[in-house]
Amino acid sequence: MRKVWRNARLLTLAEGVDALGLVEAGAVAAQDGRIVFAGPQSELPTGFGDAETIDCEGRLITPGLIDCHTHLVHAGDRANEFEMRLAGASYEDVAKAGGGIVSSVRALRAASEDELVAQSLPRLDALIAEGVTTVEIKSGYGLDTENEMKSLRAARRLGVERKVSVRTTFLGAHALPPEMDGDKDRYIDMVVASMLPAIARAGLADAVDGFCEGIAFSPQQIARVFDAAKEAGLPVRLHADQLSNLHGAALAAGYGALSADHLEYTDDAGAAAMAKAGTVAVLLPGAFYFIREEKRPPVGLFRRHGVRLAVATDCNPGTSPLTSLLLAMNMAATLFRLTVDECVAGVTREAARALGLLPETGTLEPGKWADLAIWDVERPAELVYRIGFNPLHARVWRGE
Amino acid sequence: MRKVWRNARLLTLAEGVDALGLVEAGAVAAQDGRIVFAGPQSELPTGFGDAETIDCEGRLITPGLIDCHTHLVHAGDRANEFEMRLAGASYEDVAKAGGGIVSSVRALRAASEDELVAQSLPRLDALIAEGVTTVEIKSGYGLDTENEMKSLRAARRLGVERKVSVRTTFLGAHALPPEMDGDKDRYIDMVVASMLPAIARAGLADAVDGFCEGIAFSPQQIARVFDAAKEAGLPVRLHADQLSNLHGAALAAGYGALSADHLEYTDDAGAAAMAKAGTVAVLLPGAFYFIREEKRPPVGLFRRHGVRLAVATDCNPGTSPLTSLLLAMNMAATLFRLTVDECVAGVTREAARALGLLPETGTLEPGKWADLAIWDVERPAELVYRIGFNPLHARVWRGE
Ligand SMILES: [Zn+2]
Ligand SMILES: [Zn+2]
Repeated sequence: MRKVWRNARLLTLAEGVDALGLVEAGAVAAQDGRIVFAGPQSELPTGFGDAETIDCEGRLITPGLIDCHTHLVHAGDRANEFEMRLAGASYEDVAKAGGGIVSSVRALRAASEDELVAQSLPRLDALIAEGVTTVEIKSGYGLDTENEMKSLRAARRLGVERKVSVRTTFLGAHALPPEMDGDKDRYIDMVVASMLPAIARAGLADAVDGFCEGIAFSPQQIARVFDAAKEAGLPVRLHADQLSNLHGAALAAGYGALSADHLEYTDDAGAAAMAKAGTVAVLLPGAFYFIREEKRPPVGLFRRHGVRLAVATDCNPGTSPLTSLLLAMNMAATLFRLTVDECVAGVTREAARALGLLPETGTLEPGKWADLAIWDVERPAELVYRIGFNPLHARVWRGE
Repeated sequence: MRKVWRNARLLTLAEGVDALGLVEAGAVAAQDGRIVFAGPQSELPTGFGDAETIDCEGRLITPGLIDCHTHLVHAGDRANEFEMRLAGASYEDVAKAGGGIVSSVRALRAASEDELVAQSLPRLDALIAEGVTTVEIKSGYGLDTENEMKSLRAARRLGVERKVSVRTTFLGAHALPPEMDGDKDRYIDMVVASMLPAIARAGLADAVDGFCEGIAFSPQQIARVFDAAKEAGLPVRLHADQLSNLHGAALAAGYGALSADHLEYTDDAGAAAMAKAGTVAVLLPGAFYFIREEKRPPVGLFRRHGVRLAVATDCNPGTSPLTSLLLAMNMAATLFRLTVDECVAGVTREAARALGLLPETGTLEPGKWADLAIWDVERPAELVYRIGFNPLHARVWRGE
């Protein structure tokens, strides 16, 4: 199966060219779902004369977008809690009314795998409609082996139901389940002794994540989870330094984490450690916006140290009910002052890097999946500048 | 033409019932595009047995949404300026590079009426896709009679091209055109002596608006425009107190304005004057977000004085490239702490009031246009809580 997209302007995102690897009068050729050429149309290799050809009429082609941090598989919503808070209720009032993350855990445990898939598909479809071709999905509302596995199976099934690549992440160390009566160490014992090994054996997770924060788990507890992940041969990531500086970024870097995420409170040492380890900084402006944080992640520090920046939706019912990666880009620019180039790279090349998928996707380069987003825009800045507008013309996943 | 929507939950927005006028097990009946009944299905009048019937399967019906403040008709975009600013350029740098509102004026003047319609339709379609049935559109980038008329004709044509009600507003006093060499008084002379009367005679404007601000026009200059509007029999509105307190809200109220808009710096006296005059406060969180304002409009003051609150996109290329009214609702809640009920009323009943259209639309009540939005949600809060998700099931404009 050979295909050519002609008459396009490309942002290849290949490194070392210019910021976004712009190619005017470009073409992309694919065979069996993989890119075999991406560059100036005049250099298109011969032998593609009989290939199916798509005239892009001058449109812009980027790599398919990658949402590298989501909690997309969840049950119910927390709109009620949102409404209560706006009406003046305190976090305590909300908790007393059964709100908070515990309500998401309760809802997920009560839902069947089929129900989880059905409830999550509209969210996935919203991402896909904006050109997303790869999405990461975390567990973390099941908080026991059975329900974490159910979440991860539902996530995997989403990748069968739709033409999209799904990467799953086991986030058992997300919150303490109510049946643990406040005993975090006992829960972590269970995560490392039984949950994580069982999930790894079942091949249900591509990575392991944790939430390192006063309201969640301590650096010591997270380190135990990371040790178990290492044992199981799974790469790690971390929700780090979102609400306070527990040195989560440095902890993650110490384990060679693919990414550390949120990072509002990360300090110079944390940024330096991330740079050294090649750990990507995944910025989540949707959560910053929704919970009205004041402290912005230290973007200047990351730039100075050469830390790579990715941007994601953090789609989740409690702190970021966001299903638009374009909007996440706009928020990253507007709220965190990322440049246009950083935003575009942050949902393509750097997002792929944060998933350990850079050899497979994230740039328009020979050998990678032919994952493309074709846009009705003239300049990359238009992808970031508009708010609530979707200029996608077409999406291609593995050549289709 | 008789139609019935059965098996629905209604938010009638009728006043005096409860906050949003919730009716469980409700139905709406329409004849010739007008609502003849909206209430409990059990009370549906007889004689609708042979009407076309739509089973809403328990979905929520609200009045069609109303975006009561937009600059939707414009040419080009300002993505370039956005990109420059993110890369560290100052406002001066941007101005030197030909940016700012002058670039929008130049682009609009260079565009034909057909081009304006073609460029504006995708923005209108984005609003319509979220259930908008009425949209207000301002001129204000032409800044001479010919180009202001061209804008307003393009706006009227949008209402022919799509099934949507368009209300036009003449915003000649938006900015000073470059050919006036800084002479604001001379420009206002022209607005009141020739532009406004010509536009009123041509029937191209349903209202008159102005921008009262240090960077735009003084209260005295705005008063002259409002006097001319009065003369021409047109209601007025005002961009007031956005960046400083020039007592624009009180000025608008003094002229019995339909609305005063933005209002970040409005004080107690301004709110009191608005309440007395019945002037609606139109809140524009998209602009607040995009230009990173710090001062929030005094929502508490407005509530205390009983000022009605509307919410709109302010869709414009310079300070709010926002084409999602759902997102404007989320921003009004998240950033300005409006309640769910205030947000929903703010894009229906109160938006209609701000346009002087409350007798025609904005609530589900007999005699009004059958403008409906049918949603795949259980609770009104879901319309406000989600970010970048469109739960619209169907839209009905004048019964169709
Ligand atoms: Zn997260
Ligand atoms: Zn405006």
